[in-house]
Amino acid sequence: MRAVELYDTTLRDGMQGEGLSLSAEEKLRVAQRLDELGVGFVEAGFPSSNPKEIELFDLLRKNPLSHSAVAAFGMTRRRGTEPGDDPSLRVVADSGAPVATIVGKTWSLHLEKVVKVDRSENLAMIEDSLAFLATGGQRVIYDAEHFFDGWADDRDYALECVRAAVRGGAETVVLCDTNGATLPTQVAEAVAAVCAEVAGQVKVGIHCHNDLECGVANSLAAVEAGAAHVQGTINGIGERCGNANLVSVAANLELKMGIRCLPAGHVTSLTRVSHFVDEICNRVPNPAQAYVGRSAFAHKGGMHVAGVMEDAKTFEHVDPEAVGNHRELLVGELSGKGTIQARAELMGLKLDDETAGRLVETVKEHEHAGYHYEAADASLELMIRKETGGFEPLFELESWRVIVEKLANGGVKTEATVKVLVNGERQVSTAEGNGPVNALDTALRAAVGQVHPELERIDLVNFKVRILNENRGTDAVTRVLLDATDGENVWGTTGVSPNVIEASWEALVDSLEYGMQPVLRGPGD
Amino acid sequence: MRAVELYDTTLRDGMQGEGLSLSAEEKLRVAQRLDELGVGFVEAGFPSSNPKEIELFDLLRKNPLSHSAVAAFGMTRRRGTEPGDDPSLRVVADSGAPVATIVGKTWSLHLEKVVKVDRSENLAMIEDSLAFLATGGQRVIYDAEHFFDGWADDRDYALECVRAAVRGGAETVVLCDTNGATLPTQVAEAVAAVCAEVAGQVKVGIHCHNDLECGVANSLAAVEAGAAHVQGTINGIGERCGNANLVSVAANLELKMGIRCLPAGHVTSLTRVSHFVDEICNRVPNPAQAYVGRSAFAHKGGMHVAGVMEDAKTFEHVDPEAVGNHRELLVGELSGKGTIQARAELMGLKLDDETAGRLVETVKEHEHAGYHYEAADASLELMIRKETGGFEPLFELESWRVIVEKLANGGVKTEATVKVLVNGERQVSTAEGNGPVNALDTALRAAVGQVHPELERIDLVNFKVRILNENRGTDAVTRVLLDATDGENVWGTTGVSPNVIEASWEALVDSLEYGMQPVLRGPGD
Repeated sequence: MRAVELYDTTLRDGMQGEGLSLSAEEKLRVAQRLDELGVGFVEAGFPSSNPKEIELFDLLRKNPLSHSAVAAFGMTRRRGTEPGDDPSLRVVADSGAPVATIVGKTWSLHLEKVVKVDRSENLAMIEDSLAFLATGGQRVIYDAEHFFDGWADDRDYALECVRAAVRGGAETVVLCDTNGATLPTQVAEAVAAVCAEVAGQVKVGIHCHNDLECGVANSLAAVEAGAAHVQGTINGIGERCGNANLVSVAANLELKMGIRCLPAGHVTSLTRVSHFVDEICNRVPNPAQAYVGRSAFAHKGGMHVAGVMEDAKTFEHVDPEAVGNHRELLVGELSGKGTIQARAELMGLKLDDETAGRLVETVKEHEHAGYHYEAADASLELMIRKETGGFEPLFELESWRVIVEKLANGGVKTEATVKVLVNGERQVSTAEGNGPVNALDTALRAAVGQVHPELERIDLVNFKVRILNENRGTDAVTRVLLDATDGENVWGTTGVSPNVIEASWEALVDSLEYGMQPVLRGPGD
Repeated sequence: MRAVELYDTTLRDGMQGEGLSLSAEEKLRVAQRLDELGVGFVEAGFPSSNPKEIELFDLLRKNPLSHSAVAAFGMTRRRGTEPGDDPSLRVVADSGAPVATIVGKTWSLHLEKVVKVDRSENLAMIEDSLAFLATGGQRVIYDAEHFFDGWADDRDYALECVRAAVRGGAETVVLCDTNGATLPTQVAEAVAAVCAEVAGQVKVGIHCHNDLECGVANSLAAVEAGAAHVQGTINGIGERCGNANLVSVAANLELKMGIRCLPAGHVTSLTRVSHFVDEICNRVPNPAQAYVGRSAFAHKGGMHVAGVMEDAKTFEHVDPEAVGNHRELLVGELSGKGTIQARAELMGLKLDDETAGRLVETVKEHEHAGYHYEAADASLELMIRKETGGFEPLFELESWRVIVEKLANGGVKTEATVKVLVNGERQVSTAEGNGPVNALDTALRAAVGQVHPELERIDLVNFKVRILNENRGTDAVTRVLLDATDGENVWGTTGVSPNVIEASWEALVDSLEYGMQPVLRGPGD
């Protein structure tokens, strides 16, 4: 079976996408998921560009990946210097990454108008920058920027650039459609010609963008023409129209073209990895995304549903489970009683079929309203406990009120009042806060904390707000996700409402009630 | 110059997309825009499926299109009946549409498992259904459903189906990748083979879906292999992963392949038509959409911006104006004076070096505090206008106040009061809302709208909340992004505060003030 390397650049080129920014720790988590998925290379970043990038390389040294090779990204040396004197090449050499990926110019227009370097100096810059890193012991990948524009302009010079990279010791030369200007048949023709030229000397790779909505097809065309290495990003994030979507590329290679690009069986992780990256980037997953979108295997209408039930091949091009997705039947969904029963068992509770059936209905209703329990295990567990009687409330609500006021040229004042019964005693507290949820949290803790000082142990560590139907403007429904910890365990809760404060209140109460269950239920439970 | 027909099925196949539904009047407006764009065919719908569809055909008779031919969609007759006795074929014949598009089966799996029709009866159903309509005076297009699956399974039978359509009098036979299962090279091979078989007898068309993220590339591959007719939907809307995106197909054919598919010069309308369809379908336009997305020609970083200013071809595969889009220069952490100056120039303002330097400092401070202008072009523009004096405020704030109250077992009540001076007159309004921001928006519009009724034109279409330092729990800083529209343009604004309501207020005020600048500054500006 033919194999192709996947090179993920979500953390570098993907982060050029508008509005995207991740902390070093978040990038580490993405790298770890990519490692589990089994891509060949994880490009971590451009270590010279800012301190956050260097921090990531430190984190990656302390938390080594088990499958993927980490790549540091840099540019060819400046004109007229020695590679060893170029500070940004040095940073790449010193990054600790086993792979160095170096980008350089191919297209005369860029040499003339952007970097103002002559053509022979450019060839030297490519060759000796790569040789410097290769001699230092790194595996070197060369990204030939604007390759296809250069090829259209002057294919002899484009090939000279490739040969310079080969002489410099590149293990792979990647042909980049940097401006996303190229059509699949043009990609195929150029890749085939380059492969014929450098056969046996170097691997040829491909790096596409989606400006013609052909990023995936261009990558596949390159593979059909002989490329053995494909660069892209998860979900195709990236500047302008994005990079080639590595999720679709991987699924197409493995499932449609019979070409191996992930460890055996790992293609089933694609849906999970895709959703994780959207989640951590705070992007709404595209329901229509190929293979992994929520609607990718959705069927509606009698004939479609009947056809799928008779033989799924009638209306499905591939088994949704093959990529870790699932079929949606927009009428008559199958129940998940077994899942709920299994979940309850983990909590030490036994659910009979009837209770489980009732819970499935409740979960469905809640999910229809916008709740999402995948990241809110604690809210799900509380719901099961409420249904089975194994739940002790922390307090009984009488009312709460939040007032936010702004005066011209003045700050904002936020005040919350909470009135509750705790063990039958009425407690009233008012607190100020930075924001409405902070004020509510403080007031609630003050009210309940008089009876239950153990509340202090619980910290809220993570607060996410997602607008569900963004296109309804300020009239949209809000989902809040909260993570809380007692210093030992971390648990997630959720709340949903058109009112962001009510949604936050729901998640907040779940956070505290979940954390207090062991105290409230006592040692006998 | 070679020409290809565009056949738009937004109003029929596009409407299969999850959550989409348009009234007959809205569909008429879409048809009129498609007519202005100049597509060859507008498929209005399936007149037998419901009365709304029949109403649309009436509307189209009363409001004839000037360029596009209207097509009615239907299926081959039922097995064992005469075409004239088939009620749904009759509705197509009686629709008044000059074109009848009839879909029929190609794939034995469907004949056996779904419709339970034998292979020879299927051929008769194709031939005599088409002959019935052609004899009645309609131009007939035949959609060969599941053609590529049928071709993979039994190419002789697939060709027999095509020949039956030719005998029936089809002017075009459209090869449909109904399940979206096919790769570009497979499409090319099958289309070339069919074209060779039926050369001179019939036009060959293509209808693709996007399940492999290759819908556009498949359509182009078919055209390269000889197809002369392309079906698709605006923005690729449609069931599962959608249909082939006709916007990208048209731009690629006209601008990259030198193939005419629209009247001369009409390709510049693509951005407007794309945004109109999203707008009327209540979809958030995809900023990364090829050619027409807001980010499709966005540049950030010093070298990119400098390159584009020197020669746009360095970083742009096509002139954005060619499709009616425009360049965006993103002002972000890495940008300097040149970018701000270039950005101001796009607004028609000249910035001297000193003002530009001051603005760069301000942008840096704001970004440090959590602002992010890449997706908030309008907030940036207002900041530049405030610095250069070209800004007219909408109102002067005295104060606002929001109260959110919850009673046990009761709903949440949200009330906002806004006190402002508009043209020196004090206006006080109180409003209720679903949530605090919705209530503030309503109250502010009521207060200002008494003086400026033009505010009504402005709709908030998109509301995003991002918690910046999520790990600080409810004590974190919140960034709000709002998109607003006046039905023609869309603009983004932002606000940042530890208080989600204040952050939303800031973005809200920017949205309204930006949209009202042309009114406030008057015709002299």
